[in-house]
Amino acid sequence: MRHGDTIKTRIAEANQQALQRIYNAEPVWIDVKRAIDVIPDMTEETILHAGPSIAFADMCFPQQNAVKGALIFEGLAKNLHEANELALSEEIVLAPCHEYSAVGSMCGITSASMFVNIIRDQTSGIETYTALYESPNRNNLIFGFFDDSIIDQLLWVENTLYPALEYAVTKIGGINTKRIIARALSMGDECHNRHWAATATLALELVPIWLDGGFDRKTAKAAIEFIARSEHFFLHLTMPSCKLIADAANGVEYSTIVTAIARNGVETGIRVSGLPDQWFTGPADTIEGLYLSGFGPEDAGRDIGDSAISETVGLGAFAMAAAPAMEILGGTIEKAISITLEMDKITVGNNPHFPLPALNGMGTPTGIDIRLVLEQGILPMMNTGIAHKDGLGQIGAGVARVPEVAFQKALRAFSDKYSS
Amino acid sequence: MRHGDTIKTRIAEANQQALQRIYNAEPVWIDVKRAIDVIPDMTEETILHAGPSIAFADMCFPQQNAVKGALIFEGLAKNLHEANELALSEEIVLAPCHEYSAVGSMCGITSASMFVNIIRDQTSGIETYTALYESPNRNNLIFGFFDDSIIDQLLWVENTLYPALEYAVTKIGGINTKRIIARALSMGDECHNRHWAATATLALELVPIWLDGGFDRKTAKAAIEFIARSEHFFLHLTMPSCKLIADAANGVEYSTIVTAIARNGVETGIRVSGLPDQWFTGPADTIEGLYLSGFGPEDAGRDIGDSAISETVGLGAFAMAAAPAMEILGGTIEKAISITLEMDKITVGNNPHFPLPALNGMGTPTGIDIRLVLEQGILPMMNTGIAHKDGLGQIGAGVARVPEVAFQKALRAFSDKYSS
Repeated sequence: MRHGDTIKTRIAEANQQALQRIYNAEPVWIDVKRAIDVIPDMTEETILHAGPSIAFADMCFPQQNAVKGALIFEGLAKNLHEANELALSEEIVLAPCHEYSAVGSMCGITSASMFVNIIRDQTSGIETYTALYESPNRNNLIFGFFDDSIIDQLLWVENTLYPALEYAVTKIGGINTKRIIARALSMGDECHNRHWAATATLALELVPIWLDGGFDRKTAKAAIEFIARSEHFFLHLTMPSCKLIADAANGVEYSTIVTAIARNGVETGIRVSGLPDQWFTGPADTIEGLYLSGFGPEDAGRDIGDSAISETVGLGAFAMAAAPAMEILGGTIEKAISITLEMDKITVGNNPHFPLPALNGMGTPTGIDIRLVLEQGILPMMNTGIAHKDGLGQIGAGVARVPEVAFQKALRAFSDKYSS
Repeated sequence: MRHGDTIKTRIAEANQQALQRIYNAEPVWIDVKRAIDVIPDMTEETILHAGPSIAFADMCFPQQNAVKGALIFEGLAKNLHEANELALSEEIVLAPCHEYSAVGSMCGITSASMFVNIIRDQTSGIETYTALYESPNRNNLIFGFFDDSIIDQLLWVENTLYPALEYAVTKIGGINTKRIIARALSMGDECHNRHWAATATLALELVPIWLDGGFDRKTAKAAIEFIARSEHFFLHLTMPSCKLIADAANGVEYSTIVTAIARNGVETGIRVSGLPDQWFTGPADTIEGLYLSGFGPEDAGRDIGDSAISETVGLGAFAMAAAPAMEILGGTIEKAISITLEMDKITVGNNPHFPLPALNGMGTPTGIDIRLVLEQGILPMMNTGIAHKDGLGQIGAGVARVPEVAFQKALRAFSDKYSS
C-alpha cells in the first residue's frame, strides 16, 4: 500500500478499476454449440442449475422438476421416478451455472446436449454460455414444467432454431450484443423483462443471411417466426453478455462491487469482486408482481434464476426508467424513474455506454457497492418471471430484492480479508 | 338545430364526432402500385407536390428541382432546361398531393410511374397513397436533389423494393399500420422523425413471407438490407395512414378540428373539418434544428412537406414525449414532455389507441381546434427534415410551427359560414 493510502482510498481505486472493466468489456455473440462441446469441464452427467450451489434434496420443486426433465431429455433416466433416484445419487454432477462460465434463466437447467449461445470478449478471448431461448409458451423446462411436450420443444430448438442461428451468426462473424442492448434502452426495453426492441433489432441483422441462399429457407422461416413471437428471445443473449461483463470485473483486490447475483428459488447469493470465489447467501425473496389470469401469490415459487446478472451490470430493474410501458409495477413513469434513482444510491458508477433517455442520458446505475447497500438500507431490486411453485410453468412477472443478510455476510468476509 | 343548442354546443358535438372518426379509422397497408394505375385522375402529365396549391414559378428551388427531376424521370423532358420550360407551360398538371388522396414527404413530388403505398380503410374502402420511401441517403429527389444518381435510385426502388414489398404485403393480405404505430410509441418513436421501432416491427412481419419460397431471394435480401438501414422507412406508411385518419374526420359540419397541415416551402396551409374544401395559408416557417456537419441555418430551405399530417392526428411533435432520445430539441425528457403537454392545450382529445408511456398512458393530444390555437396563442409544432435551399439534399432535422395567420383566416371563414 502506498504511503498515505487509507483502506477507503484503496477501495475507491479498486472499484473504479472494476467499473472500467465493466465499461470496457465488449461481448460478442459468436456461435451456438452443444453445451458439452464448448463448456469447459462439462460432462454427460453434469446438470447445471441457476443460483448458488444447492443439493438436489434442498432444491425448490420447479428446479427439481427441471433437473429430472433434463435427465430424461438426456436419456439418463426413463421417467420422473428414475430421474428422482438418479438426482439424489452421486452418479450425476449438480453444479451452479456460474461455476461453469454460464448463466441460466429461471431454474437455469443446462445439460450436456442442450445448445448454448456463446458470447466472447474479443480482447481477452473469455467465453460465457447460456442455453438457447426455449419458447414463448408458459410451459417451459426453465420454469420447472415438464412433460413430453417439453422434449418436443427442446428437439425443435435442436433441429430448427439451433441450425438457423448457428448458420447466421457464424456467417456474420459475430454480433456485438452491447451495441444492441444500448439501442434497445432507447426503445423501451430495460433488457431483462422487456426485450422487444433488442429482439427485433437482432432479427433484422440475422435475416439477410438466411436470404443469401446457402441455408434451408423453410428452417429459416420457422426460426424467424419463432423469434418474432418471442419477446424475451434476446434475454438469452443479454444474460451471457452480462456474465461476461461482470466476470471481467471480478477479482479486483479491495473492490466492494457485486459481480453476480443469482437465485435458486431457496437462496439468493451474491459474489463480490474482492472476494472472487465466495458466495454470500440469504433466503430467496417472494415476488411482488402481476399474475396471469387464474393465478395469485399463493401459487408462486420464490425468486429464482441467474438472470439477475442483468441487474448486476446495470440493466433490468436498474434501467427501469427505460421501460415505463412495462406494467409489473403499475407502469407509471414516476415509479420507473424512482426505481432507477433508488438503485443509483447503491451503485458507484453510471455506464456511459448505456444512457437512459428518460433521465436525459444518465448512464444506468452500475457497480453495486456492498457498503452502500448496507449504509443506505436499499436492497438491489431485480425484475423477474414468476414460476408456479408446483411446476405448472410461468404464472406471472414481477420484482424481488436481494436479501440484506447476503451483504452483511459479504462485508464481514471483506473486513476479515482486508482489515488485517 | 335543436331547441336550446348554442353554436358552442354544436361545435363541441361536431368535434366529438370528428374525434370519434379519427379514433375509429383502421388504416391497413394493402398494396404497392404505380401511381398512375391507382391514384384517381392521375395522368402521365400530372406531377403531384407537397403543400397547398402553388404555381411552378412560385415554388421554392428544391421543389422546382424535384418537379424537373420527375419530368426527366418520366421521359417528358431530356434535361433540366427542357424540364423547366415544360414545368412553366400548361402542358403538365401540377397539383397538391392532398387533392389526389395522397401525401408526399418533403417536396412530395409524385409522378405517374412512381410506386406508391396504398392504405385502405377496411370499413369504408377509402384509399390513400404515398410514394415509396426513396433512400436513406442525403441525396433524394424528395429533398429537392437531382442528378443521374436519382434516376438510378428511383429505378432501384422500381426494380427491387417495389416487387419485394408488393409480393409480401399482398401475400400477407394487408398489414394494420395503426397497431404498429401504437407499439412504436412505446418503443421510442414519435412516428414522424423517428421510426426505428416501427420499421423493425414491420420488417419482422414481412420477412417470413420472403422466406416462404415463392419469391426471388436475392431481391428480398436487397430489400431487407435496405429497410434495415432505413430508419425512416415506415414514415411512408405513417403518412398515408394519417391522411386516411384525417380525411375520415374531414367534412363534419360545425367541426373546428384541423384535418390537414401541409407545407410547400413557401406557404403552410391548414384544412378544417367544417370547411372541408378550403385551405388557409400563411408563410412557411423557418426551422429550428440540428444540422449535418458543414451546414447551418443559412443553407436551409423553409418548412416543407405533407408529413405534418402526422401532427394533424397526434403523432410527431404532438407525441414528442414518446421519443426523449431524439435530439432535435436537445434531447431532454423534460423538453419532450413539455412539447406534448403544450400541444395538449390546443387539442380537444387524447387518442386512446396511442398511449404515451412517459405520460402514464395519456393518449397523444389529438384534434387541433383552430379556436384553441388562437385563444391559447400556441401554434402547432411539427417535426421535420431540413432540405438545402439550393437543392443539395438533406442537411438536418428540426421543428417548425404552423403560422398563426392560417388559423385567423380559418376562424374568419368558419364564422362567415356558421354564424349566419
